[in-house]
Amino acid sequence: MIVVMKTDTPNLEIQRIIQELQSESITPEKIVGKHKVIIGLVGDTAGLNPQHLQQLSPFIEKVMRVDKPFKRASLEFRHGEPTEVSVPTPNGVVVFGQNHPIVTVAGPCSVENEEMIVETARRVKAAGAQLLRGGAYKPRTSPYSFQGHGESALGLLAKAREVTGLGIVTELMDPADLAKVAEVADIIQIGARNMQNFSLLKQLGAINKPILLKRGMAATIEDWLMSAEYILAAGNPNVILCERGIRTFDRKYTRNTLDLSAVPVLRTLTHLPIMVDPSHGTGKAEYVPTMAKAAIVAGADSLMIEVHPNPTKALSDGPQSLTLEGFDQLMQQMALIGQAVGRWSKKFSISTATPASQKPLTAKA
Amino acid sequence: MIVVMKTDTPNLEIQRIIQELQSESITPEKIVGKHKVIIGLVGDTAGLNPQHLQQLSPFIEKVMRVDKPFKRASLEFRHGEPTEVSVPTPNGVVVFGQNHPIVTVAGPCSVENEEMIVETARRVKAAGAQLLRGGAYKPRTSPYSFQGHGESALGLLAKAREVTGLGIVTELMDPADLAKVAEVADIIQIGARNMQNFSLLKQLGAINKPILLKRGMAATIEDWLMSAEYILAAGNPNVILCERGIRTFDRKYTRNTLDLSAVPVLRTLTHLPIMVDPSHGTGKAEYVPTMAKAAIVAGADSLMIEVHPNPTKALSDGPQSLTLEGFDQLMQQMALIGQAVGRWSKKFSISTATPASQKPLTAKA
Amino acid sequence: MIVVMKTDTPNLEIQRIIQELQSESITPEKIVGKHKVIIGLVGDTAGLNPQHLQQLSPFIEKVMRVDKPFKRASLEFRHGEPTEVSVPTPNGVVVFGQNHPIVTVAGPCSVENEEMIVETARRVKAAGAQLLRGGAYKPRTSPYSFQGHGESALGLLAKAREVTGLGIVTELMDPADLAKVAEVADIIQIGARNMQNFSLLKQLGAINKPILLKRGMAATIEDWLMSAEYILAAGNPNVILCERGIRTFDRKYTRNTLDLSAVPVLRTLTHLPIMVDPSHGTGKAEYVPTMAKAAIVAGADSLMIEVHPNPTKALSDGPQSLTLEGFDQLMQQMALIGQAVGRWSKKFSISTATPASQKPLTAKA
Amino acid sequence: MIVVMKTDTPNLEIQRIIQELQSESITPEKIVGKHKVIIGLVGDTAGLNPQHLQQLSPFIEKVMRVDKPFKRASLEFRHGEPTEVSVPTPNGVVVFGQNHPIVTVAGPCSVENEEMIVETARRVKAAGAQLLRGGAYKPRTSPYSFQGHGESALGLLAKAREVTGLGIVTELMDPADLAKVAEVADIIQIGARNMQNFSLLKQLGAINKPILLKRGMAATIEDWLMSAEYILAAGNPNVILCERGIRTFDRKYTRNTLDLSAVPVLRTLTHLPIMVDPSHGTGKAEYVPTMAKAAIVAGADSLMIEVHPNPTKALSDGPQSLTLEGFDQLMQQMALIGQAVGRWSKKFSISTATPASQKPLTAKA
Repeated sequence: MIVVMKTDTPNLEIQRIIQELQSESITPEKIVGKHKVIIGLVGDTAGLNPQHLQQLSPFIEKVMRVDKPFKRASLEFRHGEPTEVSVPTPNGVVVFGQNHPIVTVAGPCSVENEEMIVETARRVKAAGAQLLRGGAYKPRTSPYSFQGHGESALGLLAKAREVTGLGIVTELMDPADLAKVAEVADIIQIGARNMQNFSLLKQLGAINKPILLKRGMAATIEDWLMSAEYILAAGNPNVILCERGIRTFDRKYTRNTLDLSAVPVLRTLTHLPIMVDPSHGTGKAEYVPTMAKAAIVAGADSLMIEVHPNPTKALSDGPQSLTLEGFDQLMQQMALIGQAVGRWSKKFSISTATPASQKPLTAKA
Repeated sequence: MIVVMKTDTPNLEIQRIIQELQSESITPEKIVGKHKVIIGLVGDTAGLNPQHLQQLSPFIEKVMRVDKPFKRASLEFRHGEPTEVSVPTPNGVVVFGQNHPIVTVAGPCSVENEEMIVETARRVKAAGAQLLRGGAYKPRTSPYSFQGHGESALGLLAKAREVTGLGIVTELMDPADLAKVAEVADIIQIGARNMQNFSLLKQLGAINKPILLKRGMAATIEDWLMSAEYILAAGNPNVILCERGIRTFDRKYTRNTLDLSAVPVLRTLTHLPIMVDPSHGTGKAEYVPTMAKAAIVAGADSLMIEVHPNPTKALSDGPQSLTLEGFDQLMQQMALIGQAVGRWSKKFSISTATPASQKPLTAKA
Repeated sequence: MIVVMKTDTPNLEIQRIIQELQSESITPEKIVGKHKVIIGLVGDTAGLNPQHLQQLSPFIEKVMRVDKPFKRASLEFRHGEPTEVSVPTPNGVVVFGQNHPIVTVAGPCSVENEEMIVETARRVKAAGAQLLRGGAYKPRTSPYSFQGHGESALGLLAKAREVTGLGIVTELMDPADLAKVAEVADIIQIGARNMQNFSLLKQLGAINKPILLKRGMAATIEDWLMSAEYILAAGNPNVILCERGIRTFDRKYTRNTLDLSAVPVLRTLTHLPIMVDPSHGTGKAEYVPTMAKAAIVAGADSLMIEVHPNPTKALSDGPQSLTLEGFDQLMQQMALIGQAVGRWSKKFSISTATPASQKPLTAKA
Repeated sequence: MIVVMKTDTPNLEIQRIIQELQSESITPEKIVGKHKVIIGLVGDTAGLNPQHLQQLSPFIEKVMRVDKPFKRASLEFRHGEPTEVSVPTPNGVVVFGQNHPIVTVAGPCSVENEEMIVETARRVKAAGAQLLRGGAYKPRTSPYSFQGHGESALGLLAKAREVTGLGIVTELMDPADLAKVAEVADIIQIGARNMQNFSLLKQLGAINKPILLKRGMAATIEDWLMSAEYILAAGNPNVILCERGIRTFDRKYTRNTLDLSAVPVLRTLTHLPIMVDPSHGTGKAEYVPTMAKAAIVAGADSLMIEVHPNPTKALSDGPQSLTLEGFDQLMQQMALIGQAVGRWSKKFSISTATPASQKPLTAKA
């Protein structure tokens, strides 16, 4: 249930209403939007009568029930205003959100050694990426596969951050590693296989780092938003949703089925920013550029692209990684599409002296 | 197996080779590409030795096995050259193919009456559509749902064609209706539920109309290409593949899961033109524009869009139909994206005096 | 909507009510059950008021709406009484239904030649099968695979029927073959790929042969019952439903996922008899016996088992076919389970002098 | 790779071979079977030559590569001998395995209070269950749903164990709770959502309690065995696999699709015991008895059944829980089937003075 306050409601009145609504079973949350303040109520609201609530104050514009199972994650809960997730990095604040330019996150599946991660960071930065991804702890199907270099890889990510100023995105698998990961990461990634690891999700409320929540392989959109709700309910409002492909009956030519229509669907359901990962989504480097560009048009606020200096020698996910050159080219192609939809940062824009229409975009990276 | 002839091989020599290759179990097919002639061999080729074949003539450039289960539909079979499907319409020839502007097919799910189909035809033509879709025979899950007006609807489609000059796309369900449908249709559609109705597919070789083959709900990409192969093998080379969403575990917010990555995947497997139908793919009008534009960037050669003068009163598929105004707007948005990727017809291009980047494209139709 | 008549309602009164209910949009159907007569109403029943109908006659026990999308196929439509599908064969009438012993249908995927089909028929009859399956027209994914011997195979099936007295089950793919197939078949099979070939389904109302309707690979239970409804609505009440596996994400060790829980689910939704085909369901002969026995306990009324004299040389579906010896053994194992659940024909029962519990049943056929 | 020793190889010789095979990259594991000893080698075995290994000792019968991605979990790794998982409980040792009677685990989804859990334990014990299930920590899709009573519920399970002597099965979600859970649980359950929570799996090697590993909703059989491999590789050989339904396109009438053919498939791939959970598999109490009995015939070594004294008031999963009476009846029905396949404990056998065939088994619990 949400209580929408009129514009220019005095702060004291808002405080008073919050105090009145506070109870054992309900903790009101103040949400400050661009134009309005909303008071969100989650909990045992079944017994509340919207009409009675309305009478609490003449400053209340309206009271509405949120009829979705996800509350804080619902678009209604912020009265339609998109969340902006701001990530401070040495190079400046990067903002994820519907009214901001598309943010590109790039880097290798796993951090392999200092040279490769620093070199990759330099190159993806030069190409226009704003954050570096790189796995220290890797969820692998087989216990005999490379499991990531763990803590030492975190150190290498810190080094790459220091050298390039790029913010860091890395995955957390074990609650015991939370402090260590949070020290290095600017965004903490929760992988598809842990999307319903509720113990882990609950602990993410305690930290002030944004969370990148990947969609589980068999997660419905509703399951996914409920998992986001766990994090929001635990007290961390900075969640980015990442579509990375779902599991279907056809797995011969792509590793997963990238569900791009999830992007416009999410837009009608939630205020949270949306990222797309075409690398895991397709599992093959040759399809990544095409789907990255399609994701921009589908409305993604951010793209995550796997890049490796030498994909054929990668310790993990080589087949889906672009080369450094491939990523360079992709960023130029993405710029054209990003500009066409008005979502590309001016800083990275491409002169259109040569009109885009004369440069056919191909699926070859 | 294919035999690639050198450029400028004399016609007589090609004829001679074809005669030599002809046997009880193999019928060679001559495929004339832009630069080369290829002789395709399908059948009992296991016993053929490529090196022996090579020695048949000094004009043979190379001999290659096609290692896919689909032969005629494979990219190798045309040595990488895309098929162009040409559709003569009163307004001129419409060409579907990778090196041509995107073709838009629009119209209602079902033909309901003369006024609605003619009016819709006029309006979608004005907005830039080149073909009119409209169902006379409708495959409906329930025997109690509207089954289409059948033969009389075919007459109304003919009328709309006459009035607007648009080519007609309509579905064939029953082999017994083939002649009647072929008389009116410029392209014959085979629906998702009949994708593996092999009796029907075999009969499509006998006619000279292009076939629009929709992907079955649980069809792998390989199954789908094998169904195209049935039509090609029966003697009809003009097949257009149409992705329209597959069935997955999540059916709450969309009717199907539109598999856009099928487009770049098909591009690496087949020479056939590719259409995308975001109306069935999503099942909701509000998601159609976004996914239509994403499909363009994914590489679709054609879009099929359901449009109805009054979707809330439609006899079938109302929820996924755009209004006439919605389609107008979509075509303008599609033009911007189509121009950005160099795939939009100049005839329908939009002046970019106002740069596209200043007109944010939204999901609202 | 159904009108349940009191026991012992005079026939004339039933006739009178039917005449009163008859209208342009509704054709009442008289359903004679073991104890009661029901009048089923399908069509434009939205405007009918159950309370008004009730007043038509004091012999009306009650009037109920059928709230499922399938009407004639619903359990309510027969007021909970199972349908019995009776199949006259030279060896006597075979009855499919919930209160009858389990019926076994066995035979090869395709009819290959006279010797193999007659020999197989003899052997499966000796082992206890009551009907012979064998494909004359085969739906194959590839146009280059063996497509069945067609009409000549029908002749061989007739021969096998003559020699053994077994009833024949064979597949119809093309409406044009209906008369020919109906001449030989005692049950006409509609395959999974044609489950939503509505043109074909509609034509099955015109014949008086029972129809075996296989579940489509991506068909929900509701889709499937709606397809049965097409046949029932066309006037043929003798439909047997056959579960044969659905398509899921895991296709490595089995060809399909046999959905055995569909059996108890169907039991709560429909009165139609239920068959299970573990051969297509698993796609591997080694798993067929185990799943055949599990299907009995799940409540199947009938089993369809692929059997071939020499599976490694079969023209189609060899990997999932049992040998003749394997089928012999399976029938003995099935007898033990069938007796345990009280669903095995006494004619084929096995002496339990040696208690079943001392003969461990293994998955090896 | 495995080294199979001849029967009666002296222990010292086995020790000698193990020492010779020990290296930085390979730790040999001694597996003592009923008749033979096997030395299993996992790790960097690519460089090992089976013929050279054979020459290490005349007592080596043969050396074989394990060509599956799962090694320790593979049937080959134990040379075909089934694992027996022995669980000491106050009432005696309960053994899970292919050559043992079926073990029934029953109890509520969540532990709600002392009275309900103790009462349920008493009743399911009386009916023949050997272990009590009950959730203390519950993985719930929504953060607002009941999350389990946690530590206090563990105390109640301990109480129920004390009163009835039944062993306890309860779920572990958070590695931080491992010690607490292990203190009470006789078997630790890892839920479907955590099947690929690899951090958690790795920590299960450190304890000597058997692990019940549920199949993930979108896990292939191979993924599942790889997760078991994590536990085995971490040093805990006592893993029981539990099929609980997979996620498919049809979710209307059942919560999941119970994949019963996974049971015979697993039998050909692994030596680990197999459990089936028809309660989660179907999600509806009315289908549980039928599928529980079918699971026995499919070859399950154990059944897990949700039982609640008052399902309509259950704090979680009420719709899929049997009543205490329903469970009583199910156990009698299961006994008949279990006896028919020779897998029912004599202790719980039912007199067959009234032959089973005269007691029709229905789907009604």
